[in-house]
Amino acid sequence: MTDFYIENFENIDESMYNKNAQVTGWIEDSRSIGSLIFLTLKNSTGKLQLIIKKNQVSEELWKQVDNITRQSIVKANGKLVHNEKNNIIELIIEELNILNEAVHPLPLDPTGRVDSGLDIILDSRSLSLRKPEIKSIFKLRNDSLMYIRDFFINNDFLEINTPKILSLGAEGGATLFKTEYFDKLGFLAQSPQLYKEQLMLAFEKVFEISHYFRAEKSNTTRHLNEFVSVDFEWAYKNNEQTMDLCEDLIKYTINNLIKNSFKELKNLDSDLSNYLNKFDRITYQNVIDDLNDLDHKKSFGEDITEHDLVVLSEKHKSFYFITDWPSEIKPFYIAGHKDSDLSMSFDLQFSNVELVSGGVRIHKVDELEKNMKKSGLDIKNFKSHLQTFKWGMPPHSGLGLGFDRLIMILANRKNIREVVLYPRDKDRLEP
Amino acid sequence: MTDFYIENFENIDESMYNKNAQVTGWIEDSRSIGSLIFLTLKNSTGKLQLIIKKNQVSEELWKQVDNITRQSIVKANGKLVHNEKNNIIELIIEELNILNEAVHPLPLDPTGRVDSGLDIILDSRSLSLRKPEIKSIFKLRNDSLMYIRDFFINNDFLEINTPKILSLGAEGGATLFKTEYFDKLGFLAQSPQLYKEQLMLAFEKVFEISHYFRAEKSNTTRHLNEFVSVDFEWAYKNNEQTMDLCEDLIKYTINNLIKNSFKELKNLDSDLSNYLNKFDRITYQNVIDDLNDLDHKKSFGEDITEHDLVVLSEKHKSFYFITDWPSEIKPFYIAGHKDSDLSMSFDLQFSNVELVSGGVRIHKVDELEKNMKKSGLDIKNFKSHLQTFKWGMPPHSGLGLGFDRLIMILANRKNIREVVLYPRDKDRLEP
Repeated sequence: MTDFYIENFENIDESMYNKNAQVTGWIEDSRSIGSLIFLTLKNSTGKLQLIIKKNQVSEELWKQVDNITRQSIVKANGKLVHNEKNNIIELIIEELNILNEAVHPLPLDPTGRVDSGLDIILDSRSLSLRKPEIKSIFKLRNDSLMYIRDFFINNDFLEINTPKILSLGAEGGATLFKTEYFDKLGFLAQSPQLYKEQLMLAFEKVFEISHYFRAEKSNTTRHLNEFVSVDFEWAYKNNEQTMDLCEDLIKYTINNLIKNSFKELKNLDSDLSNYLNKFDRITYQNVIDDLNDLDHKKSFGEDITEHDLVVLSEKHKSFYFITDWPSEIKPFYIAGHKDSDLSMSFDLQFSNVELVSGGVRIHKVDELEKNMKKSGLDIKNFKSHLQTFKWGMPPHSGLGLGFDRLIMILANRKNIREVVLYPRDKDRLEP
Repeated sequence: MTDFYIENFENIDESMYNKNAQVTGWIEDSRSIGSLIFLTLKNSTGKLQLIIKKNQVSEELWKQVDNITRQSIVKANGKLVHNEKNNIIELIIEELNILNEAVHPLPLDPTGRVDSGLDIILDSRSLSLRKPEIKSIFKLRNDSLMYIRDFFINNDFLEINTPKILSLGAEGGATLFKTEYFDKLGFLAQSPQLYKEQLMLAFEKVFEISHYFRAEKSNTTRHLNEFVSVDFEWAYKNNEQTMDLCEDLIKYTINNLIKNSFKELKNLDSDLSNYLNKFDRITYQNVIDDLNDLDHKKSFGEDITEHDLVVLSEKHKSFYFITDWPSEIKPFYIAGHKDSDLSMSFDLQFSNVELVSGGVRIHKVDELEKNMKKSGLDIKNFKSHLQTFKWGMPPHSGLGLGFDRLIMILANRKNIREVVLYPRDKDRLEP
């Protein structure tokens, strides 16, 4: 007779003592001492000690349990007792079923006693998630997704779903994956940029969190070929308001993680309290000046490279915005300041990692066409996009945030592959 | 001098009367009567009447406003007054800027006075969203997404993000879109099936809401080539528990819509209160018998077709489960009942629309390999998937729910394209 099933091992309390409980999970550890076997049972919520007494179970069960391979799955019934001497909770087993046996040896050690290289972890991803530290990354990722959505919902943004197979990419075709689409050629979306802009026609605030694809060969610790992006777009707002919302979004997430996900942050040795100061806002011109001050030669008009950012990170270690980039090195849809070649744009950096790209968009169709031509794009290919700007398009701005990169920072990891369940890079299409 | 900006026209209250306000939006209607122009200003939250008095503005502004095209975007400042005679709120304009003019004529009438065909609506999607009824569909969709996520979060499910480019599909290659992946061949995911099963190794409850792709040529009112699916998987649960959770999920969503999204339901003429009864659960055998009773010949073992479901919908008009399908017509990963050729599976139907497919999965590697071979799959291609079943895989079950189809039902629409912003079918890769 079982009184209840214990799903969450952290929810065990005094009211359950001396009752019959059922539990399931995997065997993390097993020690046989004379006529007793001690099993450490784990599930995603925590662990529980099971005790099997030789004289209380059948000989067959005793043998089975004595030979059980670690990480095997069991279902057990027994009496839950509080061992007062050691102040631990134990389940004295009456019945136990081995539901599935694990092979031996396993490709990695889920107890975390033996470290594994990243390739082995990724090749054995699901097993690696039994390691408490790795599990914490994905719990933190889940929590962050929840807080980011909360933030948008609290601010009256509408969640949208835009298509991922397109007839054309937002910013030209060089880094697009091609797809057979019946008798046509399709491309996988790099971002929801054009769609979220089109929707400004009817909704003032939209957001989307989804998968995007970029066919770049670069194999760095911060690049993936499939990634999750957090995008928003809102009407009638300027660059300062958009940066404010971006900063609020990240701080809302961090504050909630500090408050509610402190166990995961502790497991990951991640201290987020340093990131709650006002984010610096410096101009592109400031960056050029700073770099030259640091004896790192850089001319106005050049793009800021990864190496520049490493040099710059001496001055800026946390989150900071770089604003007012030259229009020429920003995409065609970014609006310019009046009477200058500078754009109403910003990037959010975390040290040398680019996290966000955003700005005010052009909302007048003639300016947009002019900029497309300047960027070498054929406006005929953008006919269905451009026409929406003739139907009463409001001014608007927005941004795209690399969600996996944000999690890499929040989870205090060095490689973006560590925070993605099944990462995709040039060499990794499996598992 | 402006005292405040009114974002939501439904939030206007007495405390704002006789103060200076700024508003933005599009001009829905314009009537000029002698020395007054009445403008109906709209945004996504509602509408507001603007009044321009000839003797209070410059001649230039008067002329501009008198000639404004409908659906153009304006920003206006003025005094907010309560017209007690007609009991309406009006803004007496002091300043007005035309931010972007709409062309005339537009491809469709956003006021809703003139109906448009579905193709015109989809070709002019962003403009169509200014129609209140169409806007309500996407508000309802946003709300449903929110409630579905709430449900999973409340039930301790972990949100996961699995890859959309795969080296192989879950159920063979016939209906997969192919993609160039550097020097390899990739496929677009049809479902997260194999990944969510692998993750059962470490998490007992996972869910994912994401885009999936199916290269089927069928051009029906219920099929799209890109769709959003709600998937969950949980460990140690049987078919009854999985159906219960499915039913709870849908009723949680419906109850919240009835309570919080009643305006949208009213706009869409959707009465959901009929769907709160217990969902019928009938077996595949019952369906065969019912069909034969209805003089519609059907033999055991045949798949249930669309036409069969139409015939059956005479008896089952709302949500109902069909359980215990022959194993032979279910995918390789579905577990069978002991001592029969029936599977522990279910579909959830809404009248003749298939909404959900789910069941208990095989968790023993030898059974899985046997079934793969029986289905004509090469187990070599599933090596990385199969190995996870050797690492201590718990029993598990789950389902996939066609989110767009659910919204089609909840929003009381006849064609799935109506509830998707930018639908993808064989003939539609744009906009």
